[in-house]
Amino acid sequence: MSDKVIITAALSGAGTFKHNNPAVPYTPMEFAEEAHKAFQAGAAMVHIHARGEDGMATHDVERIRATHDAIKERVPDIIVNLSSAVGPLATPEQRIAQIAAIRPEMASLNTNTMNFSIVDRKSGMVAVDFVFTNTFTMLQDFGKTMEANQVKPEVEVYDIGGLDNFLLIARQGFFSGPVNFNFVWGVAGGQKFRPDAFTTLVHALPPESNFTTCGIARDQFKACMQSCLMGGHMRVGLEDNTRMPDGEMARDNAELVEWAVGVARALGREPATPAEARAIMGLKRI
Amino acid sequence: MSDKVIITAALSGAGTFKHNNPAVPYTPMEFAEEAHKAFQAGAAMVHIHARGEDGMATHDVERIRATHDAIKERVPDIIVNLSSAVGPLATPEQRIAQIAAIRPEMASLNTNTMNFSIVDRKSGMVAVDFVFTNTFTMLQDFGKTMEANQVKPEVEVYDIGGLDNFLLIARQGFFSGPVNFNFVWGVAGGQKFRPDAFTTLVHALPPESNFTTCGIARDQFKACMQSCLMGGHMRVGLEDNTRMPDGEMARDNAELVEWAVGVARALGREPATPAEARAIMGLKRI
Amino acid sequence: MSDKVIITAALSGAGTFKHNNPAVPYTPMEFAEEAHKAFQAGAAMVHIHARGEDGMATHDVERIRATHDAIKERVPDIIVNLSSAVGPLATPEQRIAQIAAIRPEMASLNTNTMNFSIVDRKSGMVAVDFVFTNTFTMLQDFGKTMEANQVKPEVEVYDIGGLDNFLLIARQGFFSGPVNFNFVWGVAGGQKFRPDAFTTLVHALPPESNFTTCGIARDQFKACMQSCLMGGHMRVGLEDNTRMPDGEMARDNAELVEWAVGVARALGREPATPAEARAIMGLKRI
Amino acid sequence: MSDKVIITAALSGAGTFKHNNPAVPYTPMEFAEEAHKAFQAGAAMVHIHARGEDGMATHDVERIRATHDAIKERVPDIIVNLSSAVGPLATPEQRIAQIAAIRPEMASLNTNTMNFSIVDRKSGMVAVDFVFTNTFTMLQDFGKTMEANQVKPEVEVYDIGGLDNFLLIARQGFFSGPVNFNFVWGVAGGQKFRPDAFTTLVHALPPESNFTTCGIARDQFKACMQSCLMGGHMRVGLEDNTRMPDGEMARDNAELVEWAVGVARALGREPATPAEARAIMGLKRI
Repeated sequence: MSDKVIITAALSGAGTFKHNNPAVPYTPMEFAEEAHKAFQAGAAMVHIHARGEDGMATHDVERIRATHDAIKERVPDIIVNLSSAVGPLATPEQRIAQIAAIRPEMASLNTNTMNFSIVDRKSGMVAVDFVFTNTFTMLQDFGKTMEANQVKPEVEVYDIGGLDNFLLIARQGFFSGPVNFNFVWGVAGGQKFRPDAFTTLVHALPPESNFTTCGIARDQFKACMQSCLMGGHMRVGLEDNTRMPDGEMARDNAELVEWAVGVARALGREPATPAEARAIMGLKRI
Repeated sequence: MSDKVIITAALSGAGTFKHNNPAVPYTPMEFAEEAHKAFQAGAAMVHIHARGEDGMATHDVERIRATHDAIKERVPDIIVNLSSAVGPLATPEQRIAQIAAIRPEMASLNTNTMNFSIVDRKSGMVAVDFVFTNTFTMLQDFGKTMEANQVKPEVEVYDIGGLDNFLLIARQGFFSGPVNFNFVWGVAGGQKFRPDAFTTLVHALPPESNFTTCGIARDQFKACMQSCLMGGHMRVGLEDNTRMPDGEMARDNAELVEWAVGVARALGREPATPAEARAIMGLKRI
Repeated sequence: MSDKVIITAALSGAGTFKHNNPAVPYTPMEFAEEAHKAFQAGAAMVHIHARGEDGMATHDVERIRATHDAIKERVPDIIVNLSSAVGPLATPEQRIAQIAAIRPEMASLNTNTMNFSIVDRKSGMVAVDFVFTNTFTMLQDFGKTMEANQVKPEVEVYDIGGLDNFLLIARQGFFSGPVNFNFVWGVAGGQKFRPDAFTTLVHALPPESNFTTCGIARDQFKACMQSCLMGGHMRVGLEDNTRMPDGEMARDNAELVEWAVGVARALGREPATPAEARAIMGLKRI
Repeated sequence: MSDKVIITAALSGAGTFKHNNPAVPYTPMEFAEEAHKAFQAGAAMVHIHARGEDGMATHDVERIRATHDAIKERVPDIIVNLSSAVGPLATPEQRIAQIAAIRPEMASLNTNTMNFSIVDRKSGMVAVDFVFTNTFTMLQDFGKTMEANQVKPEVEVYDIGGLDNFLLIARQGFFSGPVNFNFVWGVAGGQKFRPDAFTTLVHALPPESNFTTCGIARDQFKACMQSCLMGGHMRVGLEDNTRMPDGEMARDNAELVEWAVGVARALGREPATPAEARAIMGLKRI
């Protein structure tokens, strides 16, 4: 584990909108601006789900490329991590094709087929049902394509079984080390944050792994602290959570990054620079 | 927790065949015979996936009913727990309709949408990809139909998130207590058995819950022991595992039940009779 | 669990000295001043080991009383928690007699007999060997005396077995609820901080318990975060740790309290006032 | 981890007597006979606390030697593991002197200073208070003497802090690998068996470790199963427990060994021969 903490800003996601928080970026320029502020606040990486002009998630390669390029132009040093889950309308082929076309430094590799729904937390009433499909074949094909294109996978684990799915496909031997995991908590369909589930995951990781974490809404703060105090990394941002711990609207992604920097320093750790983050995560491409 | 251990025999499943173990039952008479031997060996409950004449999983209501009735005729006292996952071809409507039609004392209620595949454990090569769909709406609708028909759900948890899915829908308030969980380990798509994942699940259960467990192949033995030593129950049977711990083919379901009885007694516990099992699990129908 | 976080400042202990940090208080006036600053920073309670003029731990009742009274005079509202471990020279009788004589609102009740030594963390060389004796009879007699004097015990747990020792004596039935635990990490002789040991302890607590935690040196920061994110409370202070996370000398106890307030707010929690802390911990004496 | 399970029979201890179970051995011949039966039942090792003619624990070197030698004469192949805790009257010097004099293949190295008492489990009333002293200096000196005499330590852990004590002294570098731990559960003064405490300990072990376990009374059965299903080893015997799971008096140590063999086989594991046990635990002396 590193003394340096890699802070990722998940700038937008696909499920939060300007009416949730006006700082959620839609246009390439807005993404670039949010990335710049997050970088200045201490983020080494941004995780990106591009949006169309209407603010909806898009799998249009040129729109995604424009978003990616705008960020890299504005903040050349930052690591861009593109989602391979580009909205409910994308086919598996479209999901991975845009990664192969744009070749970001890093991309999410999702390990669980799962419900990914909207359910009211109080009443238990189902608002929207959606199945997020990530078959073993997709895990295999997406992983191979990423490795072939020198795109480092960030392995997204929404439930412990996701780790087992990854470990099963990893027996094929094509993944390069180290492996970088992201534990996701609190999606309606995945597991919610529990400290003993977190320690179970950490103990189950293969050697030479790194882990970061993110959580939906208030799980964001607990999960990130848990990760940071165990030597892991932190992902924050308006994708997962639009508010600060006191319930106030977050000013922007950067304010959540500032929160993460505060947690790191409360443990005597410092945010990793992008160069330090590349060294930790094994990003070797120039 | 009870000193009595409820032993369930999962007689057939949908994925093991006579070429895996000749004792896997296909016909109603074979089911009845396996149930009878399992009962005599100490099982209080059987879990049933009916098969067609060809041995394939079936969602034909009359075939399932014939299987159910043959068991009840041969072993009137035993608790019959029917699967609500009746093969890959069944629609959600068909999955729950057969439960409502037959009204077994208990039925499985699956909580995770997940991969449910065949992947080679050594090479990581994907043989068959299948998505087992259990949306929040299905969890809600199946649960309501079971409760309305006085069919007690057995809540199947393949990953911790499945428990969270159940807890979310349970906020609607229609589930009657106590809740009976089954932790399933080792499906290619769900989590494999880990003792700390097991304790995490047990700690996360709502008050007045019971738990049993089952595991695929060798996970069956470890998981059942873990459950039994923590005061939980055990499910064994040819659905999950066709061999004994020494690698020899199991003679029949009853031999696996005998194994479970041995574990129970090694901890000073005795197998529950069906009446005792009904009292523990809250099965109130006459 | 409460949304309010009880922050305790352990002002001095018996093992840190002015040469470790000049802010360690020795005289009653110094204690009063440190308590006042800690209170202003957000502490609801102070934990006190009185010192003689020479700075060494003392079991002199009048000196301890003078220290206690100086604090209550300077900060009438604060909860004073006196140690029942008043230096290596005190007999069991002296340890509890000063509590019965002074009747603080709260006092530490130690549950483990254990090594309490100084061992070099790098070389493993033993500098000072000391056995901290807390027999079952002492646990029983100290507990009874505290309850009889309406002094609320803070149950100190240095290892999981300490909890079991307490639970065993508690079967006698004389402890009033709720029970307030303090998990201590990193003494040379007790367990060091591990997140899974922490969750094991929390799961093992009896109903209607509260928990706080403290840790030696850098364990202080990790353990307090772990507690706060799990709904528990936090103890910081120069007894356990003389430095801030960045390695700089702590300005005073108040600076460590400020750190704890920062952690609480990073999770959306606020420091409990003494009145709120009394309500949470069941301190009923007027 | 090994597929072979090392079964240790703790023949007598110091706290169980013929009035608890007539098979508890006192004389060298009785020890030899119990060892022989245990060996035939599947034990690879015996753990020995010698007794005087009156049945009380003894630290008399010649009595201990006579007991050790009688066992080796009767069962030359078995591994003899002598206790370094030879009764409440022995000084630290006497505790280790007998080990250096007799040079058994293995000896217990206790890591916790702790209460080791008799407390009624139901009423919480204290019957006998005793402090079992194992300072850091003793841990260091006993360990060095064992290593110098090629006596392999079995590291006894009664609480997680005991592991930390060992790890601290191990920084001195004199312990040879692999390290063999024994987790002890249920002493009045140590931690009682909890599965999550067990997994926490296993995760905390240094690389190249082995672990076995034992538990007092009914903890014996649960703890041994937990160990066996996690790839660890098992210690049973009249030292820890005089009854079988059904509450009946154990016929002798061998009947408890038979129980352990049954658990091993229920998991597809076989008892290790002494030669296999020596290979696993790194016992190299001829």
